[in-house]
Amino acid sequence: MATAPSDLESAIPFDRIRYNEQGLVPAIAQDYLDGTVLMLAWMNQAALHATLATGEAWYWSRSRSELWHKGETSGHLQKVKSVRYDCDSDAILLTIEQVGDIACHTGERSCFHQIEDAISPPPADTLSQVFQVICDRRDHPRLDSYTNRLLAGGDNAILKKSVRKPLRW
Amino acid sequence: MATAPSDLESAIPFDRIRYNEQGLVPAIAQDYLDGTVLMLAWMNQAALHATLATGEAWYWSRSRSELWHKGETSGHLQKVKSVRYDCDSDAILLTIEQVGDIACHTGERSCFHQIEDAISPPPADTLSQVFQVICDRRDHPRLDSYTNRLLAGGDNAILKKSVRKPLRW
Repeated sequence: MATAPSDLESAIPFDRIRYNEQGLVPAIAQDYLDGTVLMLAWMNQAALHATLATGEAWYWSRSRSELWHKGETSGHLQKVKSVRYDCDSDAILLTIEQVGDIACHTGERSCFHQIEDAISPPPADTLSQVFQVICDRRDHPRLDSYTNRLLAGGDNAILKKSVRKPLRW
Repeated sequence: MATAPSDLESAIPFDRIRYNEQGLVPAIAQDYLDGTVLMLAWMNQAALHATLATGEAWYWSRSRSELWHKGETSGHLQKVKSVRYDCDSDAILLTIEQVGDIACHTGERSCFHQIEDAISPPPADTLSQVFQVICDRRDHPRLDSYTNRLLAGGDNAILKKSVRKPLRW
């Protein structure tokens, strides 16, 4: 669920944002749940206004020179949860719910997947990642999986493990 | 501990980064532990090179038109853990350890503390925030604090609570 547009429209004082010579300001889109930085794109005043008015992310496409309703073609819309601006009022931070969990046109979750000439997703909240692994093991059990052994043991085995592990730390 | 510079230097293929007309590329600094977006600043090729060579964040100060070794004056250095670039090679994402836990010149932790005309820190990993509250209660106990009651009860009270809570969910 996106934040009600009426809440968003009051989040940014338009006259305070400092756009660059091209009338643009960089906007970071961050997953609202696990904190992963998904992309950096650009907004002009119209894109910012459309974002606040609709509760979905709009950017300015520099390559196509047009307003860009993110996900309109791919279906990978971004539902905006909060909008912040920085101390110099020349950068914007959106926290979003990424529909389809894909922000990048390459099909990767995040545009920042490139490191050391390789593909590797940027860091997310560790517990969210662990939770995804547990769900994946539940849905696709493996014979050699310790997680599946715990899951098969039921609540008792899981809770004993949850209590014992912190004690060892 | 910063990542060994030798690891970082191979992280970014210099000739692939696309700087803008001013020779700059936006760089996002994200806390490597809890995922908070701390700031957006700009790098030119020299700043990126210095960052990779030293393992500490260097930017290009647009207001002072000079290389800016972040924290050199304030002591709030940024120890770089990883460097990524995006799918268009025109934005950089640093994960960092923020010395002093203050990235903003205003004294706030993050530059993105402005929302709805008020001051409010951007979202961080919830468990990291809970952990900080627990540490704070431990160090500065309050009479009416439920956390202090649990802490006073010792391992037994804490573990019983840890097990009981998930069962209720």
